[in-house]
Amino acid sequence: MATAQSTEQLIRRMLDLNSRKRVREPDETVVIECIEACVECAQACTACADDSLAEAEVTQLIKSITLCLNCAVICEATRQVVTRQTERDVDLLRAQVAACAEACRVCGAECQRHAAHHEHHRICAEACHRCEAACDRLAKSDLA
Amino acid sequence: MATAQSTEQLIRRMLDLNSRKRVREPDETVVIECIEACVECAQACTACADDSLAEAEVTQLIKSITLCLNCAVICEATRQVVTRQTERDVDLLRAQVAACAEACRVCGAECQRHAAHHEHHRICAEACHRCEAACDRLAKSDLA
Amino acid sequence: MATAQSTEQLIRRMLDLNSRKRVREPDETVVIECIEACVECAQACTACADDSLAEAEVTQLIKSITLCLNCAVICEATRQVVTRQTERDVDLLRAQVAACAEACRVCGAECQRHAAHHEHHRICAEACHRCEAACDRLAKSDLA
Amino acid sequence: MATAQSTEQLIRRMLDLNSRKRVREPDETVVIECIEACVECAQACTACADDSLAEAEVTQLIKSITLCLNCAVICEATRQVVTRQTERDVDLLRAQVAACAEACRVCGAECQRHAAHHEHHRICAEACHRCEAACDRLAKSDLA
Repeated sequence: MATAQSTEQLIRRMLDLNSRKRVREPDETVVIECIEACVECAQACTACADDSLAEAEVTQLIKSITLCLNCAVICEATRQVVTRQTERDVDLLRAQVAACAEACRVCGAECQRHAAHHEHHRICAEACHRCEAACDRLAKSDLA
Repeated sequence: MATAQSTEQLIRRMLDLNSRKRVREPDETVVIECIEACVECAQACTACADDSLAEAEVTQLIKSITLCLNCAVICEATRQVVTRQTERDVDLLRAQVAACAEACRVCGAECQRHAAHHEHHRICAEACHRCEAACDRLAKSDLA
Repeated sequence: MATAQSTEQLIRRMLDLNSRKRVREPDETVVIECIEACVECAQACTACADDSLAEAEVTQLIKSITLCLNCAVICEATRQVVTRQTERDVDLLRAQVAACAEACRVCGAECQRHAAHHEHHRICAEACHRCEAACDRLAKSDLA
Repeated sequence: MATAQSTEQLIRRMLDLNSRKRVREPDETVVIECIEACVECAQACTACADDSLAEAEVTQLIKSITLCLNCAVICEATRQVVTRQTERDVDLLRAQVAACAEACRVCGAECQRHAAHHEHHRICAEACHRCEAACDRLAKSDLA
């Protein structure tokens, strides 16, 4: 049995195997990168919030924790919405991707403020920026 | 030990007990109604999708099922975002509430199309309409 | 258009409208109470974690916050699993309901420790205890 | 700014940066593989359910769709629980990982039944089997 070599490959193969698939290149790559960025950003935000809870100066990280929790759950919702293509509704997709870009923008900015002190905030900010950019690209594609 | 008499009461008491609480009436009622509407809409959509999967004519309900699954996960994300008030970010809140209103509008319209044939679609459309209205009210409040 | 008068009523009607419905009383009430308890416990835990983040002594509440976040996401997963009845798998249901009972037990015990100091911990502990009991009843029903 | 080269690397770095980190090798690799497997299985199941909804013979895939939806949400809950290490509760972790292993076992078996007809079912079954094995390894580690 073959093994999916990466999350990116798994996402692409499963999208390609949809019988009603209508998304074609170059839009498909934009869709795949958005799903992948949501997955990574959700994981980064869940871990960053947990890492912040372990810091001695947690009282200065409350905003970062709250934003990371919100960003993680929004990324998970967006991951699902972008993955479902059998009966895609473009208005719903556009609205959720816009909300995700905004969540990533706000969370990334707050985590960036702490990046010099905590490497986990720097990595999380990076994941947020990537996800914001991927959502923006999807919002501007023909698809959405 | 006292018992919370309703979900609405539980939501209100937990919001009131936040030490940094800044939301006051009439906005607080708008916040509470939005959380409550998200909870009910998520439950209605999860159940409606499952009920549709049990119908003989499931092939005509694929769009409704997909939209219900998307609406449910967006309502759950919105429920969390609206509940978290310790460090509320208004831009993030506004964007997610707008996405939820759009998801409810689209899902409610599709379920309404099947309302004459299936009571579960009628009830789900009703929950979607209520949630869309609650999200719209929150988007227009001073809070957001 | 009729309005669902309560979350409990909404849950019951949507379950009753499933064409393949096989769950009958008294087990149906056990199912409904479990779903309702998961909804309330998820909301209580999300709010309790947020309320804890607002407390001056947040450093003493890290365990409570972590357990509330875990309990909330497990309750949400359990809510979905118990709601879906079209093709119910009893082994999967039993395992997830057992995990939810354990999450509620652990989270409820930790929040109870803080109940004398914070009313939100008392209410959350109460919601956890109710949900643990509801999950235990479902685990012992004929259904599961 | 460095880029995380893979989801696996992102997970490992964020866990390593926790100030209260207590998980050491070889258990840490078991934790990381479990998180990664949950991420992939959730994505495979979300996509497989959507792909099944697009198939002409959807009426024969209702059980697979339901199990994939349940498995996806359980994997997402498990991903969060395993990621949070600041105040890990071993009983809660063990129960949720066991529920996830069971969900993956049941879902993987059903998807395997359709693997000869649909490649997306074959890939999903593979992701379920990997995740079940990763959960089982974590359940048997010293950690849990």
